[in-house]
Amino acid sequence: MRIEKKIAGMRAFVQGARRGGKSVGLVPTMGALHDGHLALIRRSCNDNDITVVSIFVNPTQFGPNEDFGAYPRDFEKDAVLAERQGVSVVFAPEPREMYSDDFSTWVDVEQVSSGMCGESRPGHFRGVATVVCKLLNIVQPDHAYFGEKDYQQLQVIRRMVRDLDLPVDIVSCPTVREEGGLAMSSRNAYLSDAERTAALAISEALREAAALVDKGATGAQAIDLIDQRLQTEKLLRPQYVVAVDPDTLADKSQQGKPLLLAAAVHAGKTRLIDNIRVD
Amino acid sequence: MRIEKKIAGMRAFVQGARRGGKSVGLVPTMGALHDGHLALIRRSCNDNDITVVSIFVNPTQFGPNEDFGAYPRDFEKDAVLAERQGVSVVFAPEPREMYSDDFSTWVDVEQVSSGMCGESRPGHFRGVATVVCKLLNIVQPDHAYFGEKDYQQLQVIRRMVRDLDLPVDIVSCPTVREEGGLAMSSRNAYLSDAERTAALAISEALREAAALVDKGATGAQAIDLIDQRLQTEKLLRPQYVVAVDPDTLADKSQQGKPLLLAAAVHAGKTRLIDNIRVD
Repeated sequence: MRIEKKIAGMRAFVQGARRGGKSVGLVPTMGALHDGHLALIRRSCNDNDITVVSIFVNPTQFGPNEDFGAYPRDFEKDAVLAERQGVSVVFAPEPREMYSDDFSTWVDVEQVSSGMCGESRPGHFRGVATVVCKLLNIVQPDHAYFGEKDYQQLQVIRRMVRDLDLPVDIVSCPTVREEGGLAMSSRNAYLSDAERTAALAISEALREAAALVDKGATGAQAIDLIDQRLQTEKLLRPQYVVAVDPDTLADKSQQGKPLLLAAAVHAGKTRLIDNIRVD
Repeated sequence: MRIEKKIAGMRAFVQGARRGGKSVGLVPTMGALHDGHLALIRRSCNDNDITVVSIFVNPTQFGPNEDFGAYPRDFEKDAVLAERQGVSVVFAPEPREMYSDDFSTWVDVEQVSSGMCGESRPGHFRGVATVVCKLLNIVQPDHAYFGEKDYQQLQVIRRMVRDLDLPVDIVSCPTVREEGGLAMSSRNAYLSDAERTAALAISEALREAAALVDKGATGAQAIDLIDQRLQTEKLLRPQYVVAVDPDTLADKSQQGKPLLLAAAVHAGKTRLIDNIRVD
């Protein structure tokens, strides 16, 4: 497995592979790989001749009071995990390789970026869209893989790819969960044992609410159920609980399925997100 | 010569050419082709196996009170001119092919977009950057060609390509001028004979000011000379006259060469721009 830190080197490798008629998959990550990432990587290795995993903790998607500095980093472990899955290249640029001092171009995805995490993390999706646009242009993959756990991010990227005519197929993969149902996230590493136990309520509440919606309840009724269930956990502080259109992410609380139920919840200092679709 | 109106068809054609090992040049235009465009097209035909000329009057780069509706359109004539130069494909999508009803992704290039035309035409460069990003993603050319007459546009596109790692080489070509020095522009078609004569003062003033800067004058002295010369023409109303850094477009009026001297001037209802570099 090759480890590439430079854009020019990454581009040259992929262009060589393409000239050889090989298909290319990209799995963009911020490292601290868990089973959710590995499911994306396996899917890419299965679909493509060459899989590139990018590991880049992207500074432009963190707010000034967020956890950019503390974000878990373990490159050696990540590289072993990637190689074991059959990854061809890990692309791991330094921030200065990706952002020059006078960097000044931003990709703004409106509509699907507003509300939910876009409201609580201003500028976050601008940073995400910009870095994913860059990674897609550097690697020029046939397919790029994203987890459904970051559902709003997935919709932002789908919209960007559609609107800017980026020549790539976006593939989403289901959320991978720990035993007990907690959605896998690199940030779960921050949780104390007590917080981790309390956090189980998030996926439980979403599942119960989804069952209610499936039987005919509205989004508002589902939100009530989730709010009530989360209130029973003293260690959790909900940031938002919403019922939205699964494609546009517009509020759909006054209507029934198809719905996306999504929540952001603080457990101590750790911000967790999860969602469930009811189709 | 092929005329392609659909993104999917354009993409399929170019992908076929690429698989055959052919290099691709793109000349993005809004039609109403003049000798300036033809110089870009000739350069592309010379550099590449395949040349694509896009003809698309891009609604998102026009302000609400600008000339989108009146902008000169003559597709039949443009197609004949393009074919005569050896163009392989004219890409001429309808606005609805390029912008869906819920289109919501914008490419914003900061810094080089501010000032000059960016100040007098708010949103203009956002529209330009977004449509050029789309065209580059659709055609995926090896080289794309732009005229130096639209100097700020050229710098916006260069910056976007650099920042977003778009896999294309941007080639600029010198401004082509009518006899007498007026910079060629599709908008020259709007000019009355008297306005056209008055407009000669723009390039004359820029040339005289450039000679002054070349002999050691500052940007401010050059601006004074240009202002005075333009004031002698009653049919002209200057919008801006600037002396800026040729790369960053930051104000450099207090310094000498290297400088870009640039002006935007209304002749009647017609807005004309021109510039000259002093290196």
